[in-house]
Amino acid sequence: MYQSFEEAAAPAASVERVKALQRELRSRRLKGFIVPHSDEHQDEFLPPPAERLAWLTGFTGSAGVAIVLDRAAALFVDGRYILQARAQTDPALFEVLQTPEAKPSAWIAERLNKNAALGYDPALHTIKEIERLGETLSRNGIKLVPVESNPIDALWEDRPKPSVAPVIRHGVEYSGRSAKDKIGDVQDLLKQDKVDAVLLTMLDSIAWLFNIRGGDIRHTPVVLAYALVPAEGRPTLFIDPAKVGDNVRGDLRDVVDIAEPAALADKIKALGQAKARVRLDPETAPMRFAKLLEAEGAKFVPGTDPCVQPKAIKNAVEIKGARQAHLRDGVAMARFLAWLDQTADSGRIDEVEAAIKLEACRRESGQLKDISFDSISAAGPNGAVVHYRPTFANKRALKPGSLYLIDSGGQYLDGTTDVTRTLAVGTPSAGMRKHYTMVLKSHIAIATARFPKGTRGQDLDPFARRPLWEAGLDYDHGTGHGVGSYLAVHEGPQRLSRLGTAELEPGMILSNEPGLYLEGQYGIRLENLVLVTPPEPIPGGTRDMMGFETLTLVPFDRRLIDPKQLLPFELAWLNAYHARVRREIEPVLRSDDKAWLRHATAPIG
Amino acid sequence: MYQSFEEAAAPAASVERVKALQRELRSRRLKGFIVPHSDEHQDEFLPPPAERLAWLTGFTGSAGVAIVLDRAAALFVDGRYILQARAQTDPALFEVLQTPEAKPSAWIAERLNKNAALGYDPALHTIKEIERLGETLSRNGIKLVPVESNPIDALWEDRPKPSVAPVIRHGVEYSGRSAKDKIGDVQDLLKQDKVDAVLLTMLDSIAWLFNIRGGDIRHTPVVLAYALVPAEGRPTLFIDPAKVGDNVRGDLRDVVDIAEPAALADKIKALGQAKARVRLDPETAPMRFAKLLEAEGAKFVPGTDPCVQPKAIKNAVEIKGARQAHLRDGVAMARFLAWLDQTADSGRIDEVEAAIKLEACRRESGQLKDISFDSISAAGPNGAVVHYRPTFANKRALKPGSLYLIDSGGQYLDGTTDVTRTLAVGTPSAGMRKHYTMVLKSHIAIATARFPKGTRGQDLDPFARRPLWEAGLDYDHGTGHGVGSYLAVHEGPQRLSRLGTAELEPGMILSNEPGLYLEGQYGIRLENLVLVTPPEPIPGGTRDMMGFETLTLVPFDRRLIDPKQLLPFELAWLNAYHARVRREIEPVLRSDDKAWLRHATAPIG
Repeated sequence: MYQSFEEAAAPAASVERVKALQRELRSRRLKGFIVPHSDEHQDEFLPPPAERLAWLTGFTGSAGVAIVLDRAAALFVDGRYILQARAQTDPALFEVLQTPEAKPSAWIAERLNKNAALGYDPALHTIKEIERLGETLSRNGIKLVPVESNPIDALWEDRPKPSVAPVIRHGVEYSGRSAKDKIGDVQDLLKQDKVDAVLLTMLDSIAWLFNIRGGDIRHTPVVLAYALVPAEGRPTLFIDPAKVGDNVRGDLRDVVDIAEPAALADKIKALGQAKARVRLDPETAPMRFAKLLEAEGAKFVPGTDPCVQPKAIKNAVEIKGARQAHLRDGVAMARFLAWLDQTADSGRIDEVEAAIKLEACRRESGQLKDISFDSISAAGPNGAVVHYRPTFANKRALKPGSLYLIDSGGQYLDGTTDVTRTLAVGTPSAGMRKHYTMVLKSHIAIATARFPKGTRGQDLDPFARRPLWEAGLDYDHGTGHGVGSYLAVHEGPQRLSRLGTAELEPGMILSNEPGLYLEGQYGIRLENLVLVTPPEPIPGGTRDMMGFETLTLVPFDRRLIDPKQLLPFELAWLNAYHARVRREIEPVLRSDDKAWLRHATAPIG
Repeated sequence: MYQSFEEAAAPAASVERVKALQRELRSRRLKGFIVPHSDEHQDEFLPPPAERLAWLTGFTGSAGVAIVLDRAAALFVDGRYILQARAQTDPALFEVLQTPEAKPSAWIAERLNKNAALGYDPALHTIKEIERLGETLSRNGIKLVPVESNPIDALWEDRPKPSVAPVIRHGVEYSGRSAKDKIGDVQDLLKQDKVDAVLLTMLDSIAWLFNIRGGDIRHTPVVLAYALVPAEGRPTLFIDPAKVGDNVRGDLRDVVDIAEPAALADKIKALGQAKARVRLDPETAPMRFAKLLEAEGAKFVPGTDPCVQPKAIKNAVEIKGARQAHLRDGVAMARFLAWLDQTADSGRIDEVEAAIKLEACRRESGQLKDISFDSISAAGPNGAVVHYRPTFANKRALKPGSLYLIDSGGQYLDGTTDVTRTLAVGTPSAGMRKHYTMVLKSHIAIATARFPKGTRGQDLDPFARRPLWEAGLDYDHGTGHGVGSYLAVHEGPQRLSRLGTAELEPGMILSNEPGLYLEGQYGIRLENLVLVTPPEPIPGGTRDMMGFETLTLVPFDRRLIDPKQLLPFELAWLNAYHARVRREIEPVLRSDDKAWLRHATAPIG
């Protein structure tokens, strides 16, 4: 099993841990300390030794920050995680607050006096993050102080060891371009921008650039590493050499020097002596490197990680791979949904069992390298906990008259998938059908959108919300995130959200996942991945328009759709989508599932 | 007549003027000079002595910037003005380029060498503008140099004299709040933000704060002035004393000291001696004052003009006034449209005659203080020139088989109006009806929008574009701008556009004006003003939603509407709107126009 159903965090231990941290802070003359959910690479899913926030608070979500002061502590999470955070933490220890309404800086400013020193670990915060926070706090006279070593690491007794998973080649047959070509492009960009080198700190950038993959982070096939790419000459990859087998080493040797991570400090010294201009991405690089570069005499030049944009724009080989991966994943989902249809109404299936079954269905292809994240297998009211993860301890049974939400994905060599379906268990209520159909309208609003060059994700996000806004409803998460190619299931810069300022480009892959969450009742989310299509003329029009090709091939639950709520164009899209799912999936489905598929994709309305 | 139909600019004179400017620049050792469409107050509509761009280039639009180098010159305008700018300028003199695709900084950087000095008038550019431009140019080694005096002023022989229009009181019966209360609020804000004073440079902020109006700018009832508001004590209004009659002076004396504009320099000296922290809005205040403050020893503190937000959020008295003004304006528009219906099909009415008739209809109420901008009265292909203004020289007749676009508004003591209708002359083609109905769908998409607290104008703008994007069409302007209360017809921060980052607040007034422009054929724009309504519950919903109340009361041309293109909710909105227009306008309409109104507002579909 790629998924674990154990409870990772031990909230009961929090009392002692918070006390110990507070003692440690006093000994360091700090009035407080920031504990973010992050590591040196700004990974969303953390390697176990970096799970400091979970260790301290019990909260296991993928985004959040705790502030621990001498006599108070708070945990800040966004709308997706507010219920989960309250459930996982001790309310006597942590005030749980929702961002962006609640702001850590305001909370700190209210509680700390002038000249108080607030500690932070410069390896765990980006340059921009510290600049922004420092500016706000300095207005209140509070000093932000980098620590030499993270105080939690000193207290964490059984801290897990770093991963030693091997590096694997990700060949041109999947990546579509050689590492040499990609490095050449990055170097051209550096020369054009007149910088001497870029220090890469994002693991998916490094994996993309050198066409390598690994197993250092659960469900995301990246390798813990840094890379320095000079404008001229060979890049250096800083990585534990034990991970690089001979076969991989041979390939890599053509394009990059391999060095111990500890050698990075010397390399930065050398850059300093050369008074080099070194690019760091202030949005993703740790403050530590900006300070280190300047301390050594180099010039830190802020600029975007040059891998981000070309990685996001998939090439023809990656696009073909994505289509294949989605077909394979659609077959697995069809197998799973057919099984669920036969078994769920009994009331005896539980969330963990369903997640195990789904993983098994995905494994049947023989090509599953991992799941792309822990499945959110959520029965009834658990569906309203946006990033719910079932455990043996909290698992719930699927009961007739309820909804079941399953958000999952697979990592295949040719692509990363991510799909959410919400299913009726037994007979759904009129309210469930009404709400489901509303979310389906939201989903279709994105799936059918046409838009000109220059459109940003934030321009499209409201299309998905409109059907809900009209009914006095909304959801507290973005409509979609970027998705990598056998890489991170969440990647930037592309996103469909209020914060989606990046322009959409043909070849980008995003999720389309509006939702609706009624606390204590049910959650609905309908997610497909979509590919941005090139601008093309529309008859009678004067401007070429881009659009989305839906990649995911999984039926929507017909029992939950009220066709009377759908407009003609919405019904037409739905029926065309179902016809396509049937056409593509049926030939490769096992014969006992074909009947299910035919029924699940029959025309509606 | 408030509108003039003379051709203001004399493009033929441009050749000599550009040559003279280039000589002047050489004598000042400048390699070039920036000529923006702006004045010391960043007014959109300029007082005649500030029309330097029109004097130099011939271009009379309301936004643009010319760059004059020794051997090249370019005029940069946005999509609204590209056709007009090309028509009004000499192509041998000015390269006309469209922003934001073309960037002045890039154009300059390509043409000037390292260390070249590019001059600008620091009174005419905002702080932010110069910071941004300076940053880009400095990357190419080009220096941005403020001039002591504007070189154009030395060359402009018959430059108009400044206006001496009197200041008038804008009583609480219209403004809803006393100047004293407003000043108190501004001062509270300054204390809270720990600044000692704010220097106000925006004319509508000053008019709003002191409840005064004037006649220094055509169609916008503001007074040329500066104001300094200290955190404690009395503000000072810097204004030509000849404009302040005794009656006004008595009222103003209660709340503000009046001083000659020349006294501002001394006041800034005094602030410098006191080492005062003085707020300037970097988005709107001229660079000149930032430099002056710092030269004198004061601290320039960037911050938003504190009048902008409260001015934008209309109070109950202003809202009631707006409704009255729109009823009055709707009667005038009904009279005009009834007349047009009877006369236009003859083919003998021209654009100027129609604009004159419309102004006469507005005057009939006896309450018109001014038109709110020069009417865009555009027949046939002129409708595709987004900010077309008819003149005796270029006017066109309204011919059967064409469209006529009329964009106009009135200034009344209780409110400012702005309305656009597109009308069929004779029998419209199927294409005209199809396009008109598309734009109507765009208009209705905004009119019917519901949205939560925190929604920004940029979140709603795409709703209007979607019906056009689907057909491969779009328009190159925002969907809506903020509107003042007997003030500027364009005000911030609220706007419905790609750049609309300000959150919408109940009480804000905006235009809703999507359009479609087919060069050489016709233009369609449908504009109403809307008021943002407070959040209110929706049955079955969990979150309160804001929305828009349409203020404008003018029928849409039924001959141009194809009901088959409308969705049921769109048709319902249209028929309800027409029923409301009839209900509100009919009782106050002259009897000979009632029959027209009844026909124009009859149900459709």
